[in-house]
Amino acid sequence: MLKIYNTFTNKKEEFKSINAGKVGMYTCGPTVYDYIHIGNIRSYTTPDILRRYLLYLGYEVKHIKNITDVGHLTEDDIVQGDSGEDKLVKKSLKEKKSPEEIANFYEEYFKETEKEMNILPANYFPRATAHIPQMIKIIESLIEKGFAYEKNGNVFFNICKFSEYGKLSGNTLENLNVCKRFDGEEHEDKKNQWDFALWLKAPKNHLMQWQSPWSVGYPGWHIECSAMSTEYLGEQIDFHTGGEDNIFPHHEAEIAQTECHTGKKWVNYWIHTRYLLVDSEKMAKSKGNFYKFEDVKEKGFSAMDLRMLILSSHYRSQMNFSWESLTQAQKNRKTLENFFARITNSAIHNFNNQQNKRSKIDIKKFQEQFENAMNDDLNTPLVLSVIFDFVKNVNSVLDKNENTNLTEVKSFFEKSLNVLGIVLEIKSLKLPKEIVDLNKENEFIDLKNILGTVLLGISQEIIDLMKQRNQARDEKDFKKSDQLRDEIKKLGFEIKDVKDGYELVKL
Amino acid sequence: MLKIYNTFTNKKEEFKSINAGKVGMYTCGPTVYDYIHIGNIRSYTTPDILRRYLLYLGYEVKHIKNITDVGHLTEDDIVQGDSGEDKLVKKSLKEKKSPEEIANFYEEYFKETEKEMNILPANYFPRATAHIPQMIKIIESLIEKGFAYEKNGNVFFNICKFSEYGKLSGNTLENLNVCKRFDGEEHEDKKNQWDFALWLKAPKNHLMQWQSPWSVGYPGWHIECSAMSTEYLGEQIDFHTGGEDNIFPHHEAEIAQTECHTGKKWVNYWIHTRYLLVDSEKMAKSKGNFYKFEDVKEKGFSAMDLRMLILSSHYRSQMNFSWESLTQAQKNRKTLENFFARITNSAIHNFNNQQNKRSKIDIKKFQEQFENAMNDDLNTPLVLSVIFDFVKNVNSVLDKNENTNLTEVKSFFEKSLNVLGIVLEIKSLKLPKEIVDLNKENEFIDLKNILGTVLLGISQEIIDLMKQRNQARDEKDFKKSDQLRDEIKKLGFEIKDVKDGYELVKL
Repeated sequence: MLKIYNTFTNKKEEFKSINAGKVGMYTCGPTVYDYIHIGNIRSYTTPDILRRYLLYLGYEVKHIKNITDVGHLTEDDIVQGDSGEDKLVKKSLKEKKSPEEIANFYEEYFKETEKEMNILPANYFPRATAHIPQMIKIIESLIEKGFAYEKNGNVFFNICKFSEYGKLSGNTLENLNVCKRFDGEEHEDKKNQWDFALWLKAPKNHLMQWQSPWSVGYPGWHIECSAMSTEYLGEQIDFHTGGEDNIFPHHEAEIAQTECHTGKKWVNYWIHTRYLLVDSEKMAKSKGNFYKFEDVKEKGFSAMDLRMLILSSHYRSQMNFSWESLTQAQKNRKTLENFFARITNSAIHNFNNQQNKRSKIDIKKFQEQFENAMNDDLNTPLVLSVIFDFVKNVNSVLDKNENTNLTEVKSFFEKSLNVLGIVLEIKSLKLPKEIVDLNKENEFIDLKNILGTVLLGISQEIIDLMKQRNQARDEKDFKKSDQLRDEIKKLGFEIKDVKDGYELVKL
Repeated sequence: MLKIYNTFTNKKEEFKSINAGKVGMYTCGPTVYDYIHIGNIRSYTTPDILRRYLLYLGYEVKHIKNITDVGHLTEDDIVQGDSGEDKLVKKSLKEKKSPEEIANFYEEYFKETEKEMNILPANYFPRATAHIPQMIKIIESLIEKGFAYEKNGNVFFNICKFSEYGKLSGNTLENLNVCKRFDGEEHEDKKNQWDFALWLKAPKNHLMQWQSPWSVGYPGWHIECSAMSTEYLGEQIDFHTGGEDNIFPHHEAEIAQTECHTGKKWVNYWIHTRYLLVDSEKMAKSKGNFYKFEDVKEKGFSAMDLRMLILSSHYRSQMNFSWESLTQAQKNRKTLENFFARITNSAIHNFNNQQNKRSKIDIKKFQEQFENAMNDDLNTPLVLSVIFDFVKNVNSVLDKNENTNLTEVKSFFEKSLNVLGIVLEIKSLKLPKEIVDLNKENEFIDLKNILGTVLLGISQEIIDLMKQRNQARDEKDFKKSDQLRDEIKKLGFEIKDVKDGYELVKL
């Protein structure tokens, strides 16, 4: 049973889905005005691990991740000031491009980075600017119900009307010491200091502005998530995830808007990733310890090295990034890669006496340890230690040439790595001639299945061509055999004839 | 001097740009609710040829192609009815996806198809839904100036206020027989039958709707092009291109809106591609002669075969598509490919006595013929015949082993093909050992330059590795030589040692 830490209740809770077997998940995506940094990448890895584990447990998951391309003001993250410039507009003016061009560019970059990091793509990435009408509808509903008020073309949410305001972050109305008196410093049209903007009247010539019942303007930052979440996931969802810095004011405001609009409890489990440190300090451009994905790759590390490093800290702990820790993560990744090559080679070379072997390795035990660690609030560092323990055990059995069921070993290893989203790739593999021949004869060995997870890119087509080539060679038709070798090469693999078999090399 | 047929004046005109050396070009892009078909592809090839030739002539070109993701009604193409459903909304309801999801999918498909067809990507592809505020501004300006009127939340352009209405298509006010009496059949709020919608009030629960000063609704189809063209190219542009079916009502309406808004002449040259026939009939889904790009590829034809076929008809003639004509186009493409391989091989094998050769081929003459044909309203069929004549001449010179300056021959051939957007690819090329050695020694032969256009994907890195490998072999360091061969392979090329040289094969 998965237990997960809910920021809303401040405790680990047993997960129960709203609809049996189905999960709705919303993740606050990027504001597309700049390159995402390694802290963002860590933040998006958490819902990916959660989603992969839910899939492992058999759930059907619908995952929505928004693209913020309007409304995020430069001061929004720090205070509920509703002041500052729109981040997209600021960049547009700087680069002399339209906000849409800026947004498109960084959206593409973001998606490309997620792909390299092997983060499963959201089922849909809705853009804020494409949902202005939906936002306006919710704002109208909030005004109608008395939770929001308009003044001079600006619309604000009156936090004093929502007694549960502050439950997520602990910034309760009492703690914030509001709803008493307010001198109107934050924004002249606000009733209370912590009221937040739903709609703001645009200054003249503002680069992004839309018609609304209140003014020509633009939406506040928070309303988009309420609009897109209800649009694509309905009025109640299982998970809402984001970075720790989203808790207040962003997620607090989202709850107020959505629940006052629908009259229902909105999110069952709030999941937040803690921020990342670099060399034990907070990452900041001014300190020169601010790293983008490119910085990591330029130093010769792969996306999978970074993923290994991220997994080695629990998502709620303060992960410390350093080049030393990344080097260690790379070593760990290589250890797993060597192990993967070893068991695959062993499995292939011992294919004909696999079936009835009794294993020296207690796979069930490791599987339980793996699931227990994942069930304990996605404890990925513990999962990694289970996997390395497993690797050690299997290696020791193989060193002693003892019996073990390598198919089961491989299957557990692959499933676990899939939940972690770690992809290991082997570039070359030796195949005994027998296996190809047997495969040709009666197909009881599923070569595609054995090779598919190791030599990425191998396909049934390639295996069929290998079979045909075998036949051509048996018939001494070397011209045809060479043609088939060339066809295989076009598909990205080179087949070399070695003693008693073949070597298959990924090009 | 480029002469181009201007639909607005119905004659070929000498092209003069608004700003010296610079060209602004707007192309009506796809309505992203379905796969584009071969007729669309032809339509987008015309501005690509125009743009490539303008680049050849030394102009700097800014090219904008819009993505229509709202406002295009099912009846819009046929009559100025402003009735029918929104094409995106209709597809959304059918596929149970949001209009944004539908639009994203077909936008991606469209861009992918253009890429395969080697159509240069527009400098920017603005989306209609991202420019609603800009459209509203123009509509406001038109109402203010008396060119448009609002009734019941709908806004229409009053064509009787724009005396030049109909100049592009010939559907003048007089011919349309309007501005006299009108019984209000087309739309109950219209003053004149041919008035067209700028803004329409949305039915309740309509999937796409925005706030406006007049109603919650959506824009008419035409206004987006006026808004995005002025946004990205300014108030006056050199070229506006589209399919013949865009002339009326779409482009006629665009002119009326834009010129009444700015008070300036808008487009200097209107370029329209004539529609395509299939087996001498108009393409229609009901007739079973409706082909998408996929249909062409499934029959074993490449994007370049289709491009060759498109080029073999003039863009203003009624091109007739048939599988026979496509087969002929494929043959022609292969003829060019064989020729390209031949002259490249010859150039490489005769590298050391190239410099002072007097050519048997009068390149200047062919270049003049090429430019004359392009200058004559982009006469691509004539250009192709010039190129095939050139091929025949060069082949005959090579057959007789006569002198010719192959570098010049190759350069003219490559430049011409680049204007046509035809990419020819050779998979394998033999290199004499000398050339690699000389290249290694004194670098006076620019191998990258010679090979780069033929063996797509070759890079300076690969050539450097070849040089290093040569050195290793000279020093009998075969281990290193093999390592270098493997490195080259990773970059996508295999190097084979053949008699007196190398064969370089693209994998």
